[in-house]
Amino acid sequence: MIKWNNLDQLSSFEALKALKNHVCLKNALSGEQGAERARAFTVPMAAGLSYNYAAKQVDNDVLDALAALADEAQLTDKYEALLSGEVINTGEKRMVLHQLTRGQLAGNVIADGVNKREFYLNEQKKIADFADAVHNGKITNESGEKFTTVVQIGIGGSDLGPRAMYLALENWADANECHFMNAKFISNVDPDDAAAVLRSVDVAKTIFILVSKSGTTLETLTNESFVKDALKNAGLDASRHMIAVTSETSPLAKSSDYLAAFFMDDYIGGRYSSTSGVGGAVLSLAFGADVFSRFLDGAAEEDKLALERDIRRNPAMLDALIGIYERNVQGYGATAVLPYSQALSRFPAHLQQLDMESNGKSVNRFGEPVSYVTGPVIFGEPGTNGQHSFYQLLHQGTDIIPLQFVGFKASQLGTDVNIQGSTSRQKLCANVAAQIMAFACGRKNDDLNKNFDGGRPSSIIIGEQLTPEALGALLAHFENKVMFQGFVWNVNSFDQEGVQLGKILAKQVLAHETEGALKVFSDLLDI
Amino acid sequence: MIKWNNLDQLSSFEALKALKNHVCLKNALSGEQGAERARAFTVPMAAGLSYNYAAKQVDNDVLDALAALADEAQLTDKYEALLSGEVINTGEKRMVLHQLTRGQLAGNVIADGVNKREFYLNEQKKIADFADAVHNGKITNESGEKFTTVVQIGIGGSDLGPRAMYLALENWADANECHFMNAKFISNVDPDDAAAVLRSVDVAKTIFILVSKSGTTLETLTNESFVKDALKNAGLDASRHMIAVTSETSPLAKSSDYLAAFFMDDYIGGRYSSTSGVGGAVLSLAFGADVFSRFLDGAAEEDKLALERDIRRNPAMLDALIGIYERNVQGYGATAVLPYSQALSRFPAHLQQLDMESNGKSVNRFGEPVSYVTGPVIFGEPGTNGQHSFYQLLHQGTDIIPLQFVGFKASQLGTDVNIQGSTSRQKLCANVAAQIMAFACGRKNDDLNKNFDGGRPSSIIIGEQLTPEALGALLAHFENKVMFQGFVWNVNSFDQEGVQLGKILAKQVLAHETEGALKVFSDLLDI
Repeated sequence: MIKWNNLDQLSSFEALKALKNHVCLKNALSGEQGAERARAFTVPMAAGLSYNYAAKQVDNDVLDALAALADEAQLTDKYEALLSGEVINTGEKRMVLHQLTRGQLAGNVIADGVNKREFYLNEQKKIADFADAVHNGKITNESGEKFTTVVQIGIGGSDLGPRAMYLALENWADANECHFMNAKFISNVDPDDAAAVLRSVDVAKTIFILVSKSGTTLETLTNESFVKDALKNAGLDASRHMIAVTSETSPLAKSSDYLAAFFMDDYIGGRYSSTSGVGGAVLSLAFGADVFSRFLDGAAEEDKLALERDIRRNPAMLDALIGIYERNVQGYGATAVLPYSQALSRFPAHLQQLDMESNGKSVNRFGEPVSYVTGPVIFGEPGTNGQHSFYQLLHQGTDIIPLQFVGFKASQLGTDVNIQGSTSRQKLCANVAAQIMAFACGRKNDDLNKNFDGGRPSSIIIGEQLTPEALGALLAHFENKVMFQGFVWNVNSFDQEGVQLGKILAKQVLAHETEGALKVFSDLLDI
Repeated sequence: MIKWNNLDQLSSFEALKALKNHVCLKNALSGEQGAERARAFTVPMAAGLSYNYAAKQVDNDVLDALAALADEAQLTDKYEALLSGEVINTGEKRMVLHQLTRGQLAGNVIADGVNKREFYLNEQKKIADFADAVHNGKITNESGEKFTTVVQIGIGGSDLGPRAMYLALENWADANECHFMNAKFISNVDPDDAAAVLRSVDVAKTIFILVSKSGTTLETLTNESFVKDALKNAGLDASRHMIAVTSETSPLAKSSDYLAAFFMDDYIGGRYSSTSGVGGAVLSLAFGADVFSRFLDGAAEEDKLALERDIRRNPAMLDALIGIYERNVQGYGATAVLPYSQALSRFPAHLQQLDMESNGKSVNRFGEPVSYVTGPVIFGEPGTNGQHSFYQLLHQGTDIIPLQFVGFKASQLGTDVNIQGSTSRQKLCANVAAQIMAFACGRKNDDLNKNFDGGRPSSIIIGEQLTPEALGALLAHFENKVMFQGFVWNVNSFDQEGVQLGKILAKQVLAHETEGALKVFSDLLDI
């Protein structure tokens, strides 16, 4: 029997709070015991990744307390309930099925009279067939020419995740000769976004993917018009250049305006949709259906690991619980995501949405106010770039910001130079290793301006190479981390009512139905 | 006589602290008084911009207290001292002269026996002549072909600012027929960064700008080798494709490896260098020297406004002081920068460096620990994209995050569509107006999941269009805001000792001179 209790109703949380500042990171990571810890505090993940938490402020006492919390909060039971189709998104009264897009981890899930696993697999197959037909020239433009470019039109979850995943695999696909089409993205309602992308592509050889679950997203429909105008102006038939990814009940689903329509449903939240057709269409067109399938395999394998009840063997749950300790016991307000991989340049922006939109809530799943802090601010940039930017504050600022590093042992393109006795790849990795220690242990200096207190916690996910499988595992790890944290905070991580009021007021402004300050701001902005 | 006191030594700060939670934003912005406030709480900036702070938690009481703080902290006197060449960067014993790159606001500043204004102007002129010669074909590649592309090699301040400025003006330059060359950027030591950029350009028609003040930045020298290899492999003479922006004392300054060298100096910090040759070379090559000059004019005009002693007429100082109130009285830990302009997509990343690297300090300018919080976390993405991402937490999360909006009345490219009775430009602006009110006033709902408490402060900078002048003004506004906040916190905003330890440890890793946990992490990362 699952109990949905607030965090502060759990006795294990009281025990955890007693462990505030329990570990001196500087001592823990020093000397031979530090080496031992760096070797021991690691958990295997899928696709050859591992999660190393040696530089987190935990020891066996804290880990035992976190295990007790996981147990009392019934994290595994809740995940299993989610997988088997319980209505976990209580606010919107919906199941949560994004894990099902990449693998069957529970029994059959039936919704709306349909076996959902079969439904998702079928859509994946339809997309694969479509992508194959485009690649082998069975589907062409009006002049019989092959399509070379794909442009995704979507915003939020229909943009950030797919864009981050595309950028993550672009170089890998080049190196592996499966970069079939270039992808671009139009998201913002700022007319300069669509106009600039359209100027940069040959529309005659471009397929546009319109992505909107409801088929009513204002930005996306506006940008669709933009694109249709451009196609029309070029003397082209828009319906031969556009496909839709939407729900079966949306106005886009059966429109003859599209070459094809692929379906998702209400059980896939936007920010969790990269492994559905939302990511599937653009990634399959860009890199081939096989690469997308490998990406799903990595995610599915990671989803399985998340079922493990021993937190020391469950990377996502452990990461989630350490985050709870940092947020609700240590009192840290933000987390930085720092991939030492240029290919992951937009991965932090995706995680920012995933985490902040899921758990930036002040009420529990029953709509009652919570009396503890929930989701932190998430931000980040790739290293080593960030080192030359905001790391100053991370090292010497007045607030402690926990850090999430990611690093790989091999580059994607394999081109490298050896300067001053080391390759770029070695320099990149040497820097992330050095940062972990600098943040954790610091270095004393009598000139306090050059003094490093240390005691700044980090973890690192280490992989062999950023492959499709590794990317899928990385994505699923963070999705599951966010899910487990939502369970601990007892919030609904799958709705987003906080985005509604702005939409309502924007409509009033556009209808010129405003007064007071809103009218003044509207006038100042010349609307 | 200037006194460099800590914030908590100022009696005006005690008075300010008494005004915690003094303004109910919801009430203040409601009804006719709200409209009046939205009209009144605004300060003109340069280049037709204005700074509107009606949705900040201030009233005349708070503003008076902030004015007293500005006075007691001698903000204007300190700025004047900086302008006239006092050694404000005490840690490194250097003057701070970035404002001098764009205009003479004080008397002559002589350093190293040179009139620095003449020096900067002369470098600007040299760059202008070089860019003209490239554009009109006097300087060509080995085959007598025109250069079409410019690639900047730099990291941190040599990357983020110039890149953000280039992206900000790219569409504008297209629309104004002064987009002479495309620019790309190589920054990360990740070999995939350089390799991917090199794959995307025709190296035979590319000029590479090597940017490193010291001439010793490891990432940049490594990437230079990468580029030289690529040029050599293409059978090209690297010295005919590369220019350097560096200090006169650097190893790059007189090297015959470069077609030309342009100079900056130790008085220009990396993150403040966009208006020096660091930004000047790439922007002048991309858009012409005239556009760069207009960008400097906007910055210079804004610098002048920052001299105003009345905080209600000094947008940068007012913005800075309100930030102090939010950070040190209200206790907010982060600030989000949210430009409603796709062209400003990387402007938040630049501000993140500018702010966090300048004021992320725990010691005052004398190296003594401070007992109050300093620089906040800065993050952001363009609107409306962010609305579909992390705004959920901003609206309904448990922490309050102050917001900095930016909006323009006209797009850059001028292409637009009218859907459902409004243009994209109107939709974009309607959204930012709506967000200000939604954050400030909220909306009551008995279903607490749909309830918006409001009370979340924001300001907005409104402009006519994102022109070179407006961009310069925007940049200088934030540079000066950060400077004033550094004065209030009594920190040195112009050094960055916090980045040093990581560099030292990385060198040890590369030399295989490590032990303990650092050795283990090095092994795990296969260095």
